Amino acid sequence: MQPSSQPVDTDSSSEVAGSSSSYRMTRAVLESWLRLRAIDGVGDVTVLRLVRAWHSPEAVLRASRDELIESGCSPQLADTIRRGPDRSTCRSIERELTAVERKHIEVRSALDSTYPMRLKMIADPPPLLYITGALTEQDELAMAIVGARRATAAGRAMTEELSHDLAGAGMTVVSGLARGVDAAAHQGALAAQGRTIAVLGCGIDRTYPPEHERLRRQIEEQGAILSEAPMGAPPHSHHFPRRNRIISGLSLGVIVTEAAINSGSLITARLAAEQGREVFAVPGFVKTETSRGTNALLKEGAALIERAQDVIDAILPQLEPSLRVRLQPLQKKNEREGQLGKEEQLVYDVLSYAPLIVDDVIVTTGLSVSTVMASLLSLELRQRVRQLPGQRYLRA
Amino acid sequence: MQPSSQPVDTDSSSEVAGSSSSYRMTRAVLESWLRLRAIDGVGDVTVLRLVRAWHSPEAVLRASRDELIESGCSPQLADTIRRGPDRSTCRSIERELTAVERKHIEVRSALDSTYPMRLKMIADPPPLLYITGALTEQDELAMAIVGARRATAAGRAMTEELSHDLAGAGMTVVSGLARGVDAAAHQGALAAQGRTIAVLGCGIDRTYPPEHERLRRQIEEQGAILSEAPMGAPPHSHHFPRRNRIISGLSLGVIVTEAAINSGSLITARLAAEQGREVFAVPGFVKTETSRGTNALLKEGAALIERAQDVIDAILPQLEPSLRVRLQPLQKKNEREGQLGKEEQLVYDVLSYAPLIVDDVIVTTGLSVSTVMASLLSLELRQRVRQLPGQRYLRA
Repeated sequence: MQPSSQPVDTDSSSEVAGSSSSYRMTRAVLESWLRLRAIDGVGDVTVLRLVRAWHSPEAVLRASRDELIESGCSPQLADTIRRGPDRSTCRSIERELTAVERKHIEVRSALDSTYPMRLKMIADPPPLLYITGALTEQDELAMAIVGARRATAAGRAMTEELSHDLAGAGMTVVSGLARGVDAAAHQGALAAQGRTIAVLGCGIDRTYPPEHERLRRQIEEQGAILSEAPMGAPPHSHHFPRRNRIISGLSLGVIVTEAAINSGSLITARLAAEQGREVFAVPGFVKTETSRGTNALLKEGAALIERAQDVIDAILPQLEPSLRVRLQPLQKKNEREGQLGKEEQLVYDVLSYAPLIVDDVIVTTGLSVSTVMASLLSLELRQRVRQLPGQRYLRA
Repeated sequence: MQPSSQPVDTDSSSEVAGSSSSYRMTRAVLESWLRLRAIDGVGDVTVLRLVRAWHSPEAVLRASRDELIESGCSPQLADTIRRGPDRSTCRSIERELTAVERKHIEVRSALDSTYPMRLKMIADPPPLLYITGALTEQDELAMAIVGARRATAAGRAMTEELSHDLAGAGMTVVSGLARGVDAAAHQGALAAQGRTIAVLGCGIDRTYPPEHERLRRQIEEQGAILSEAPMGAPPHSHHFPRRNRIISGLSLGVIVTEAAINSGSLITARLAAEQGREVFAVPGFVKTETSRGTNALLKEGAALIERAQDVIDAILPQLEPSLRVRLQPLQKKNEREGQLGKEEQLVYDVLSYAPLIVDDVIVTTGLSVSTVMASLLSLELRQRVRQLPGQRYLRA
């Protein structure tokens, strides 16, 4: 029997077709996926091709040797599928199923209608997505922001601002929970009460880097944590390039705010371009290590952005009308900034997102030391500026 | 008699055709130019059109009223030319002729074969160029570098480096002698023992800003000072946009290293593009005022450059073979940098052209306070780093 003409298994397809956001994959369906994924030497692309051909993972497992061969499997692969996993693999699948249930982890497959639409259309979507928090329809309007782990203070501030403004405009900010730019991207969206998604390079039950545990919890409350890796998978560096295709795959475009030359962020950006995603880069001083990568992207044709509005202007024309209406106009900066005293405003104008030492603020404003110190304190209390070690200040 | 068929005045044409670099315009030819230029309500374009039609300014002055009208003059203009300047104008022309001779100023007209080739081809070349120092054939391989007067320390350092490297490769660096980027551009070329040209917005016998008197003398020794303004003309701000067309007109392209939004440098860059010149911009941090202009140029399509090699790579394909062979390969940075001790190298690597406070150098290198201080002192003595107020250091 040919898989394409085979009657769809109604038991499992009713699960698969469920479009409710509270949808949960049954243990039986997940078990079938895990059994297929456990086959040695068979990649995600093959698993997905088989399951798509047979309409469900159970149908693949139920097919006869001849049917499998007829549907394109090699005799060896057909034998392996028919034989099923060995005892040790069965035990590990059992453990994973138990962990998924116990930890209330949602799993969606690339066959599900609730699987992210854009990600489903890339060349090699992850067959399974493990999710904590909540992935909603809103998240189709997503923008990735990635970059250097060793970002500069100015770069982190710039990332926060961009992310804050995009999230405030109704976009979900997607990133990788890493140190530096990634963390700033998540934090900016959270600060705007917006949505944000972190895609992990390890199992969904782990947090890497460990110090981002609290950030992760906040993201779960205002967005989602995703992973394609099996439960318990450690954060191996070779997971990260694969992880990055999910970050860009979920998103309309990828913004790189700071990145060193030859860095992972540049690879993500280039892969994103291959996926047909817009690539945006924030320019930076050419001698700053973490701007060399973004400047290189700009040379290669990435769109130069200075603010959230630039991103929205670029994205808008290619947006489906249903998504377009969801975009909110950006808050005007001065509306958000409220009223400052004359001297406070003077001090604030001199400050930027790059740290400045107090001496420079005094010289540039021409104000007295005591006036500058008082204004800085007042601005700090109003969370308009932040202080760094060494009497340095920058806009918050 | 039609001007195009009129026999060329041999006396003056022998001057005009002279191609020796020691060429000097005779007092009589210059006087004729000055008389034409002094006519009220007649602009440079009209003067040049008339002189080109009649092949010399003397021939225009000698033409009859009917001949002038036949060659396209209005009756009013023909009358004014025939009448000649009033007594007061005659006196001021006399004064200018005396000053040119006394101060050994060279004057070239747009009719001269020694007039800069590229400048001659713009829509409105200056009819007369006043020159001190020496303008040579080498200067056909010229690149303009312009930008903010209030440049940052990092921006000035970057400008110096670019200019140094381009001048070292055999290009003449053209700029406007202004504070900030312009001065750094001239200084970089001088440091490389290269050629540089400053185009003034005031009379050639003045120096603006006055504190650049010494820089001007250095430029005269290794290049030239140019002006189209009459002797003694003050540095009025309305001269500067006109002056800027000469800077770009002389050059293969215009580099903007730092510029505020809505600044003169941006106008220069846009005019340069209209003249068919390449426009290059150095990217910068988006919150730095003096990078907003360059980032805006990049958005408009200027070529992003990070180093001299980028400029040369862009210019090379469009260069006449005779100029191409004059370009020298760029010195490799590490050859120029020589050998540093291990800790010196570590400290140097952490430093950039943006000032860094000592605390950050200590934290980032992980070296002891005394080692960092000793390395900085050694690097300073070797003129590899510079110290700024507030214990801040940057690469020299």
